[in-house]
Order: sequence, then structure tokens, then C-alpha cells
Amino acid sequence: MSRLDDVYELVAISSLSHHESALANHVESALRTNSSLDVERIGDNVVARTTGDRSSRVIVAGHLDTVPGDASAATLSGDVLTGLGACDMKGSLAVMLAVALDDAPRSDEVTWVFYAREEISRSESGLSELIEKRPELLKGDVAVLCEPTGGVVEAGCQGTLRVRVDVTGQRAHTARPLSGRNAIHRAAEIITRVAHYEPRRVELDGVEYSDQLQVVFVEGGVAVNVVPDAATITINHRVAPDRTGDEATAWLRDYLGDLLEDVDTFSVVDWAPSAPPSLGNEKLGALVTLSGGPVRGKLGWTDVATFHELSIPATNFGAGDPLLAHRSDEKITRREVEDFERVLREWLR
Amino acid sequence: MSRLDDVYELVAISSLSHHESALANHVESALRTNSSLDVERIGDNVVARTTGDRSSRVIVAGHLDTVPGDASAATLSGDVLTGLGACDMKGSLAVMLAVALDDAPRSDEVTWVFYAREEISRSESGLSELIEKRPELLKGDVAVLCEPTGGVVEAGCQGTLRVRVDVTGQRAHTARPLSGRNAIHRAAEIITRVAHYEPRRVELDGVEYSDQLQVVFVEGGVAVNVVPDAATITINHRVAPDRTGDEATAWLRDYLGDLLEDVDTFSVVDWAPSAPPSLGNEKLGALVTLSGGPVRGKLGWTDVATFHELSIPATNFGAGDPLLAHRSDEKITRREVEDFERVLREWLR
Repeated sequence: MSRLDDVYELVAISSLSHHESALANHVESALRTNSSLDVERIGDNVVARTTGDRSSRVIVAGHLDTVPGDASAATLSGDVLTGLGACDMKGSLAVMLAVALDDAPRSDEVTWVFYAREEISRSESGLSELIEKRPELLKGDVAVLCEPTGGVVEAGCQGTLRVRVDVTGQRAHTARPLSGRNAIHRAAEIITRVAHYEPRRVELDGVEYSDQLQVVFVEGGVAVNVVPDAATITINHRVAPDRTGDEATAWLRDYLGDLLEDVDTFSVVDWAPSAPPSLGNEKLGALVTLSGGPVRGKLGWTDVATFHELSIPATNFGAGDPLLAHRSDEKITRREVEDFERVLREWLR
Repeated sequence: MSRLDDVYELVAISSLSHHESALANHVESALRTNSSLDVERIGDNVVARTTGDRSSRVIVAGHLDTVPGDASAATLSGDVLTGLGACDMKGSLAVMLAVALDDAPRSDEVTWVFYAREEISRSESGLSELIEKRPELLKGDVAVLCEPTGGVVEAGCQGTLRVRVDVTGQRAHTARPLSGRNAIHRAAEIITRVAHYEPRRVELDGVEYSDQLQVVFVEGGVAVNVVPDAATITINHRVAPDRTGDEATAWLRDYLGDLLEDVDTFSVVDWAPSAPPSLGNEKLGALVTLSGGPVRGKLGWTDVATFHELSIPATNFGAGDPLLAHRSDEKITRREVEDFERVLREWLR
């Protein structure tokens, strides 16, 4: 049995957001076999804490859920595991679980956090549920979030803005479209402007961040012979830590500019704030050294921002290529899992 | 009580496609009060025939259903009735019903056809149901379809092609979109090409037809933080009677050309054939004269094509401005309804 078999076991347990109970059960049962851990189950979140008397406490956290897909299609071939969640982030979860079950000597107390619903709206996140219901479980001096980072430290994180644009037209019969105005045709102009966005790049503390803009949902149509009078676009904007949510929103509205008319609506659905790099922290600095790689800026939004809000210096560090996250061909290798485990164990020693 | 009150009564009975039972009940009950009619109910279709010994038979037909909308929002203000179905085609239905209940002397036997599910896929049409189950009810020498034509004869009809395009991309995390390919962004290019279509115009027998091209549905998206790998577009193409379905399909595929890639699919959902003008028919020629207006080519698809397939010369002639059909502000005036009734009565005398 290699650690990759453990990852395979977790990948095989489907855990789409809002459907993490089976995986939470599995993780909870495993953690309860280690009597030196204080294990708590809150909803579909599982928190396990060492209860010694060391003066400092490290939080190691990861989310249980995956984006939509077919968990049963996973395949383990040699040293490569391909499948939904392999990279984001069951490779890291399997290592977290293995290290949590091992009572090797540690320099710090450790809090292991396995939480639900990270891949959807932030307001639904299991980490938010923990903060609301049991904030004392999240006390700590530093946090590592084991999102896939390719085994190097990815510092801070970008903010993420979600905006819904409702485009309005005028209904007409499709045989006589000139008496109407096609809202889907109008929406295409907005989508095209988003598609033509040239990413803004920002350097902070020597770490580069790159903004992004993507349409993530589109919907429109009334009937097969009707020029549609309504179409809806959902846009996701990823924003470097130098901009606030209000600044990002103002920029996006201005970028769409003349394509938005008075009959349309532009509404912010969700804003998850950014976090700056926290590399001045000694413990995180040590992680950078142990990981051996160059530090990168985290382009995706992660709960490093949530720990930042809790005034806990935090960084991203986990197994797997972040470029494969949320792709249909996501995978992880034995080498990636083993390297991550080695660095995590050394860091906690 | 003016005839417009009768229209209001029909408009108030919601009859979205597949939900015409209440209106069919109303029409059937009314027709059964005239004992000289042989009334048959087949599903949500109602057929009423005079049973005299005249040597020729005229079919007068109209559909009971409307496109989606709120039937309860109708308003009757002075001589204008505004509301879903007012124009398409309850103005004509109310006149058909009134004339059917009147036993004035006629030059021909008359078959009144009230049918369901015209506004959706042709395969679901109530007229197709009648052809399949009771073809003998649709025997006749000439047919008038009372779609809104502004009180003039609209000859023949255009074919209508519905095509579904499934656009394929590559999933990725929205923070790192360069590793993926956004299918919604790709779909916008196809929609934009459709939006830029310049209508082809064709003259047949002195009647002009104009082709049209509109996107009627769009849908795409996976999750709020995923570059989507799939989007679907439904296109409606209106085609003059000089082109077959195969010709229209080939033209559309060629028009989209380089925007369609091997990973995409282009599939015909539905084709409803066109019908040529049949103005050489003596009875239809008389209708042109009585209506007093210039003859126009019918731009929308209508069941005139279905009667053409049954070898029955047919034309469109009804109350209401065809430009208002399927619009949220559709309406009909007292004058339009009365003019239509006068011409229909004279033509049947």
C-alpha cells in the first residue's frame, strides 16, 4: 500500500459540495482511532486537535468537497491517479489524515481541519460554519491550507468577485425579428468583451499575481420561435490583493461600459476578499525553506483569506499541480504525494 | 357586448402549449350548442363540420395555444385588448367561433378546426395528431389558416429550421483559465455571427420572402469557479419556399463555417417545410379580392405548409398585426376583429 492508494480510497468517495457526509464519516472514523486527538464533528466538518501543552498551535486545513464530476471514473495506473478531486484536494487530504494518525514528536500542537463546501459560494462554506458555531476550534498561531500548490508555497490569495448581468431585449416572433431585440445576441457582445480581457499583473512583496475574467454561466431563451427578451450572464473576476471588492466591482462595470444599458442589471453575487503574502512570519518562512521551491502568488481564491480575517498568518501549501484543479483530467502522482508528506512531517517535527 | 369581449374571454383562459384543455373545453361546449355541426373532440383538438350536401368544403383552422406568458395580465381598454394571445391568435378564434355558431347560408360546407400545440415543435402539433388519428376530418378543397395577417392574405409560408450547436471547451479553474478553454466564450463568437446575419430576400410569384436567423436558446456553465467546457446554442432559421430543409441546413453549416470545430456538434432538431403561394386557386383568389389588401409572403412558418402536404391549397388570413405576435405587448383592436369577421362571413356566403 502506497500513500497513493489512500488517495484513491478518498477519491472513490464522491464528495460534491453539499454531499460530503460520506467522506466526513470516513475521515471522522479514521481520526477517532487516534486517542490522543480530540475529534469533533460539526455538520460535515471534522476538526481533530492534539491536546498537549506546547505553547504554539499550527492549523492544517483542507476541504472535503470537489467540483461536479463523476467520482467513479477514477483510475490508478502505476504511479498516477487520475480522477475527480485527485489533485483538488484529496492528495493533500490523504497525507493530512496519515500524519494526523501518527504520534511522532511535534514542535507545536496541531489542529487538523477537514471542512465542507469550499468549492461553492463562500457564504455556504463549512469553514464559515465552524467560525460561526465553534470559533474556539480555529484558534492557532499559523495556518497552512493544503490546496494544490505543486509542493511549493503559494503566498496570499486573490480575491474573487462574482457578478450577474441580466441583459434585457424585446420579444418578437423569430420570423420578424426586426420588431424585437434579441437579448442573447446582446449577451454575446458582453461575453466577447470578457473573452478579450487582457490580464492585469501586479507584484506584491516580490510575488506576482495575475487578475482573470471569465464567464462561468449563461442562460437565455423563451421558446423556439421567440426572439428572447432576457439572458443572464455570470462573470467570475479574480483580483490581486491590492484591490478591494468595491474597487474590483467598479473596474468591471467600467470595463463592460457601453455594453450595459439602463434596461440591464449588474449585480454583485459574491465577493471573497484577498489575502496578502504573510512571508514575514517565522513559521511560514521555515515552510518556504523546507519546500525548497520558489514562492508563487496564489492566483485562485482560497481560505487563506479567511484565516487572514481571523488574524492568523496563513499560506497555501499542498500536493498536486494547481493547473489541473477543476479540470476533467485532473490527476496526482505518487511522487507529488510523497514529497508533500515528507515536507509536512519535517515542518511539524 | 362587442366581439372584442369574446376575444377577452378567450384570452383570459390560459392556453400555453400542452395546457389547452380548458380552452378546448370552452370551444367544444360552445360549438355543441349548434346542432347543425358535427363536433368531435380528439385530445385537445376540436373539429366541427357542417354536414350539408354542397359539393365543396372549406377548412377554417386556428391553433388554441399561446407562447409562454401570463394570461391573467390581459387588459381591455376601450377598443384595444392587450394580452397574451390577443393577436396570436385568439382574435381570430373568437371570430371563427362566432361564425361557426351562425347558420347563415353558405356556398360551401365548412370544417372548423381548433387545434393544440402549434407554438412548439411540429412533431407535437395537434394538427399532426388529427392527421394521424382522424385524417378524414381534414378533407377539404381549400383551407384558410387564421394566423394574424393584419387582415390581408399572407401567401404560402417560410420553412423553419431549428439547429442545436454543442460547443466544447476544456475545463480549468477560473483563476488559471489559460490551461482551459471557455466554451461560453466560444459560443459567443457563434452567436455574434448569427446576430450579424443579413437577411436574404427572395421573390416568388410576385410575393417577397425574407430569411431570418436568430439564437433562441443558450445555456452553459459548470460551477462558479470553473472555466466551462460546454455550452449549447439553439438557432432558429426561417427559410423562403425556394429552399429545402437540406439546402437550408447546408447553408447554415457553411455560414458558421470556421467557428465550428471537430469537437463541436451541429444537429438539426426540427425542420418544418415551406409552402409556395397558391394564389392560382379560385377560392383563394376570391379571398384576396374580398380582403382588399396587397398580398404578402408569410414570413413565419404556419400550418399552411401542413395543408400543402395534404395537397390542399391554403393561405393565411386572420385578425391582428403579425408584427405583434409573440411579443410581450401583443394586442388586437376592435376594428381588426370586426374587419376580419366581415371578410370571413362574406367569403363563406
